Amino acid sequence: MLIIQKYGGTSVGDTDRIRNVAKRVIASKKEGHDIIVVVSAMAGETNRLVDLASKISEEPDGREYDMLVSTGEQVTIALLALAIRNMGVPARSFLGHQLRIITDNAFSKARIKSIDADLIRRELAKGHIAVVAGFQGIDEEGNITTLGRGGSDTTAVALAAALNADACEIYTDVDGVYTADPRIVPSAQRLSKISYEEMLEMSSLGAKVLQIRSVEIAAKYNVPLWVKSSFNNEEGTLVTKEDSSMEEVVVSGVAHDKNEAKIAVRHLADRPGIASKLFTTISGANINVDMIIQNVSEDGFTDITFTVPRSDLKKALSLTTQIAKELGSEKIEADEKIAKVSVIGVGMRSHAGVASQTFATLAKEGINIQMIATSEIKISVVIHEKDTEKAVRALHKAFGLDK
Amino acid sequence: MLIIQKYGGTSVGDTDRIRNVAKRVIASKKEGHDIIVVVSAMAGETNRLVDLASKISEEPDGREYDMLVSTGEQVTIALLALAIRNMGVPARSFLGHQLRIITDNAFSKARIKSIDADLIRRELAKGHIAVVAGFQGIDEEGNITTLGRGGSDTTAVALAAALNADACEIYTDVDGVYTADPRIVPSAQRLSKISYEEMLEMSSLGAKVLQIRSVEIAAKYNVPLWVKSSFNNEEGTLVTKEDSSMEEVVVSGVAHDKNEAKIAVRHLADRPGIASKLFTTISGANINVDMIIQNVSEDGFTDITFTVPRSDLKKALSLTTQIAKELGSEKIEADEKIAKVSVIGVGMRSHAGVASQTFATLAKEGINIQMIATSEIKISVVIHEKDTEKAVRALHKAFGLDK
Repeated sequence: MLIIQKYGGTSVGDTDRIRNVAKRVIASKKEGHDIIVVVSAMAGETNRLVDLASKISEEPDGREYDMLVSTGEQVTIALLALAIRNMGVPARSFLGHQLRIITDNAFSKARIKSIDADLIRRELAKGHIAVVAGFQGIDEEGNITTLGRGGSDTTAVALAAALNADACEIYTDVDGVYTADPRIVPSAQRLSKISYEEMLEMSSLGAKVLQIRSVEIAAKYNVPLWVKSSFNNEEGTLVTKEDSSMEEVVVSGVAHDKNEAKIAVRHLADRPGIASKLFTTISGANINVDMIIQNVSEDGFTDITFTVPRSDLKKALSLTTQIAKELGSEKIEADEKIAKVSVIGVGMRSHAGVASQTFATLAKEGINIQMIATSEIKISVVIHEKDTEKAVRALHKAFGLDK
Repeated sequence: MLIIQKYGGTSVGDTDRIRNVAKRVIASKKEGHDIIVVVSAMAGETNRLVDLASKISEEPDGREYDMLVSTGEQVTIALLALAIRNMGVPARSFLGHQLRIITDNAFSKARIKSIDADLIRRELAKGHIAVVAGFQGIDEEGNITTLGRGGSDTTAVALAAALNADACEIYTDVDGVYTADPRIVPSAQRLSKISYEEMLEMSSLGAKVLQIRSVEIAAKYNVPLWVKSSFNNEEGTLVTKEDSSMEEVVVSGVAHDKNEAKIAVRHLADRPGIASKLFTTISGANINVDMIIQNVSEDGFTDITFTVPRSDLKKALSLTTQIAKELGSEKIEADEKIAKVSVIGVGMRSHAGVASQTFATLAKEGINIQMIATSEIKISVVIHEKDTEKAVRALHKAFGLDK
């Protein structure tokens, strides 16, 4: 079997933990598998680098920023390869450019376009364990790019897809995907299986177990994706294609996200092309807009409310202000003190009443709903940040996830 | 003019100093020059990385070691490019592989084979300041290599040679080349000019101002090489071709080196090929042997004594022991407590008596000479480490360098 294993920053946080990862990797190798290990920067390292950059420039140039932060993973791959070799097993480390992991040139948020699978196949054929730097690639011009926080998951899954691997195992500090964040809901249960779609909603809704793009790629190429703990040997959660057994469960989890901020533009002239103009500009600046709500027109005017990552609020607000002015509105409101709470489950598709039960549960707790968005398999509400824990616990209980 | 500037680890030791370097670089650019800046890792960073490696492996694999330590320079180039950009001047950072700085594959001691000058010329043509990672390159297979401690000097001079630059300026924490180490000899004088040959001897003899290979390349390609301080605006020392005015000075400096160790092999059968076998093996392990002394044969047996860098003593000793055994000798002595002190000057060639005055001066101080080696422009002696300062001061005075 060809197995891709990915270890995050906490799992490689110091040299002892790196040695521990080396042992796990070698154990898998000795079971007769071909192993590619993808690693993140040692915990704290990326922050150290970001701090250095922020001491020099408030809005650092993307190319130079990626040049800087990509060193974190480079340190880890060298140390892990040394640790594996020191235990007598051949290993070699590889950077993004050495495996020709080609991305677009959206620095700090680059997307993988292609991977030269032959290069790494040749290494595996030599019996080496290949240790690959997560999070990084190069654009067509050879500039170093990074994939955004958590991008090492994406590297791992993209490698699994490119090599048609038998499994992609994401090792992290939790031992699987839970029905809710166990720090908030102590009775949360580990799921043994979850569909790509649900996981996608979970990820995008703030269950930070996996980076969302990694799940998208896994779904697209049907990569069997495992979430496991690097500190124990629990079986973990398998993220896979939806199957009939899953359908029986109506709701599989409650996720929350405190990393968003809300922007409202009031009293915009309601004519075609307004939303397009606004959101083309914002996405052109590489800001991911999540929820968008436009109220029904009144007197030829309308309100648009949307959410963006909190880290992008400043930039999004300045773009929005500029465009709103062109469109005749100067009434813009921003709110960082929000949380998005979501109920997720493929079973919702065939079961009515999940939405109404969600709203009723929140009402009973006296929680005000600011925005609502729904899809076939999830219902998200934006509420005040202070109500997050209360909402998650109440919904987890209401949908019978406590047992 | 095209000017290459190189700043060492102390000059870029923190973000304030990096900003200071940015200002200096911009000042040169604003004088109308094309500027390429080569930088080292921030002071302390390489040691931090080396410590990490040593926690994992006592004798780390060369390829992985270079992968690790090359990150130090990558951090600096990104930060310096950000600092320059933040001051409104366009700058871009470049890694060794991005400029196709091709080396051999002697990891940690690689030698530059070629540089693709066109790539960086294209950047300069755009009006950018190019910020280049010193110390690193790639081998033919794309593995990252490093050039050895101080290798950033070599990168700078090699770029100057490849681009036929008008000047290569090495900025460091001293403001030039002195007649002796000013920490040992307070009356040491700064030289305004020194020949490549003398500088070469100075470097190889322990005056750690410039890496020896950088001087070799400068001499070979006739690169005008300046040693200047990054903390003041003193003129510094120009390293250049020997000219007639230099000839008048007999001795231009006294250098010392405490980084060597001595190995003696006693009672070897004196037959052809013995020295060859020993030193082929040692240099094959990429250990630079410096002085070699073989005594006249007595009863068909001989002694060989030689010096190696202290950091390589362990490896050299184990190789020597192995070979000596094959050659019938088991009497090996090693001594780390040595220092090499050298008197250097192109004038020596045409002036007799420098050797005898050197020996007489040391004798008067009661310093025992263990080994002697001479060239046309230098006399080196190996003495006990504890006598270093006394010897340097006495020789500096004896050759009239104090004024």
